[in-house]
Amino acid sequence: MLAQGSGLTVGAVRESFPGEQRVAIVPAAVKTFAKSGLQTVVEAGAGQAAGYTDEQYAAQDASVEQDRAAVFAAADVLLQIRGGGGNPEFLDADLELLRPGQVLIGAYDPLSDPESIVRLAERGVSCFALEFLPRITRAQSMDILSSMATIAGYKAGLLAAAALPRMFPMMMTAAGTITPARVLIIGAGVAGLQAIATTRRLGAVVSGYDLRPAVREEVESLGAQFVELPLESGEAAESGGYAREKDEEFYRKQQELMHRVVAESDVVISTAVVPGAKAPVLITPEMVEAMAAGSVIVDLAAERGGNCALTTPGETITHGGVTIIGETNLPSMIPYHASQMFANNVASFLQALLNEEGQLEINLEDEVIRETLVCRDGQVTHPRMRERLGLAPLESK
Amino acid sequence: MLAQGSGLTVGAVRESFPGEQRVAIVPAAVKTFAKSGLQTVVEAGAGQAAGYTDEQYAAQDASVEQDRAAVFAAADVLLQIRGGGGNPEFLDADLELLRPGQVLIGAYDPLSDPESIVRLAERGVSCFALEFLPRITRAQSMDILSSMATIAGYKAGLLAAAALPRMFPMMMTAAGTITPARVLIIGAGVAGLQAIATTRRLGAVVSGYDLRPAVREEVESLGAQFVELPLESGEAAESGGYAREKDEEFYRKQQELMHRVVAESDVVISTAVVPGAKAPVLITPEMVEAMAAGSVIVDLAAERGGNCALTTPGETITHGGVTIIGETNLPSMIPYHASQMFANNVASFLQALLNEEGQLEINLEDEVIRETLVCRDGQVTHPRMRERLGLAPLESK
Repeated sequence: MLAQGSGLTVGAVRESFPGEQRVAIVPAAVKTFAKSGLQTVVEAGAGQAAGYTDEQYAAQDASVEQDRAAVFAAADVLLQIRGGGGNPEFLDADLELLRPGQVLIGAYDPLSDPESIVRLAERGVSCFALEFLPRITRAQSMDILSSMATIAGYKAGLLAAAALPRMFPMMMTAAGTITPARVLIIGAGVAGLQAIATTRRLGAVVSGYDLRPAVREEVESLGAQFVELPLESGEAAESGGYAREKDEEFYRKQQELMHRVVAESDVVISTAVVPGAKAPVLITPEMVEAMAAGSVIVDLAAERGGNCALTTPGETITHGGVTIIGETNLPSMIPYHASQMFANNVASFLQALLNEEGQLEINLEDEVIRETLVCRDGQVTHPRMRERLGLAPLESK
Repeated sequence: MLAQGSGLTVGAVRESFPGEQRVAIVPAAVKTFAKSGLQTVVEAGAGQAAGYTDEQYAAQDASVEQDRAAVFAAADVLLQIRGGGGNPEFLDADLELLRPGQVLIGAYDPLSDPESIVRLAERGVSCFALEFLPRITRAQSMDILSSMATIAGYKAGLLAAAALPRMFPMMMTAAGTITPARVLIIGAGVAGLQAIATTRRLGAVVSGYDLRPAVREEVESLGAQFVELPLESGEAAESGGYAREKDEEFYRKQQELMHRVVAESDVVISTAVVPGAKAPVLITPEMVEAMAAGSVIVDLAAERGGNCALTTPGETITHGGVTIIGETNLPSMIPYHASQMFANNVASFLQALLNEEGQLEINLEDEVIRETLVCRDGQVTHPRMRERLGLAPLESK
């Protein structure tokens, strides 16, 4: 157990991205931080949209500041749901409030907007973009992509059920038999598996499709049918947990199969994303037109352009009677629990930054630290970021 | 099996009530009618909002008429989702299209607007208001109140899950444990039991409350806890299936109990209605204010004024951070299956109106026919309607 009062302060401001309802620190996390000797400061109203009141933070001995700038001034470590490339509002309004040596932890969407990391670097901060967490067991408790994907998959199932003009479950009633909804989930990562679980819970007949045959067992264990691409796809292996690119012939056959299963589905929830890159287009306009009127597509890749060619990010449209939901921020729609999970993730990461004396120490021997650090001491440090920015590699120490 | 071609025609027009998406005849029902020797005519676009195309009706040999008046002219029997008191638009626009001897079957909300039945009577039609179906086994297949309540209860569960800033299911994840949502269902009729089933499916911890101790077993068999009013309520029996009025002391104790369980709930779905009367107010403003911010109330009694004192029928409001959903037509939000069930109900009822030759015969010996008939030959015939209208009882024949 660490000594009380390391003198370090952790802070969170009200998120400024339009529509964002989450907050990076919840009242329960204040208690966790205190056990590590950390003080907490939050901007007044920071948790309001997520259902956490200023009084609840204060009851855990957090300092609640009316003045947003005062939080930046007091925080040695700033926790953020969206910073950097993920939030232009933050860069425009708050960048000047950052100071050299200040530590930033959160989601920074660094690959989508590498220049935003240059701007952070110029402020002299040490920024940790949790999107870059290595997919190792120790980092699971810090994994914001997984926790937010859990929320998004659940919410996608609900959105689909809410938009469909049919019931999900089969019912045998005095007024006849209701046939269950047929749901197709594309991509069996965390979000896809949660979407399978949720739509199964609601009684739908669910199929799951994924390039990786290895996930068949997980899909089937949730009560869904695994849609198999009849190809010698033994090479459809993984690279860092994500599906690799495939050749043209493969994509043609994939499209044929997809056309057939999409046309037979009442609901399609697509979750195929490649971090930092545009999402692959898997659902063509022709496939949408082959669906029955009233069918629903929920495109979880909307923020990255969408898995469906017709998806309009941030909007719900209809095409030939098919509803296409392009919500770009599903975790924010369940802000209470999304904030709780996010706060647990960043709190877990923060532990890795504290040494035995409870002081901040950026230990580059630790891969969790090394791989997420995007800038420090005025320089962009992350090799992938430097490459994107056309900068020479830093000399290794 | 009846001879083909009795010469009778069944018809349905596009429903005119604002926002109504259901239709009283679905393509599958056309086939059912044909087996009884009946022709079908529908107005073009009648099924569109519910997901049934003109082509699908035509494929079953229904006649699809562009001209609404032509459907009224052709139909010996008109099937309606909402007519009479349930649809002022219908009375204003379509009343003159009705003709003496024409048979109307559907929902007419006769007790809410008795004058509307007088207007129908003046047209000389024979109108059957299915709200008056006796609660007997034989009538179950005709029971539109039950089938629509099934849809409404399911949809209420979805609306609650969609509006809550929390997840419904418990989850144990690397980012911590998510506690399940606590849901209270008030009223364990068809809608209430379906709301219990749906919220349980989604993983919530559910309690069910009802005045009638007899429903405890049903509530518990769905995995919910039965909330008991600690009173000698052995007399809380049923009258025609509905809860009877209780005395003042009973209501006071009920309110105390309700306050406690409402305050502890993340979601309240209330379903307490008395047919044709204003809904009882069970949730006071004080109870709403005792709920945590972010909580959700779905008031299925909104169309009858609401079980919650703060409900605004037809709207979703927030009060002290609590979302109160006052949707008045939930079945219409799942129009595909709601139409299918409604069509099955009216088709079943229509069978009771056909004699062995397949001709219409209003047989008043049949209680299903007798109790639903509200007007005929220019007169309001239903005893309860006559009483409401201040008319002397008709002489019994």
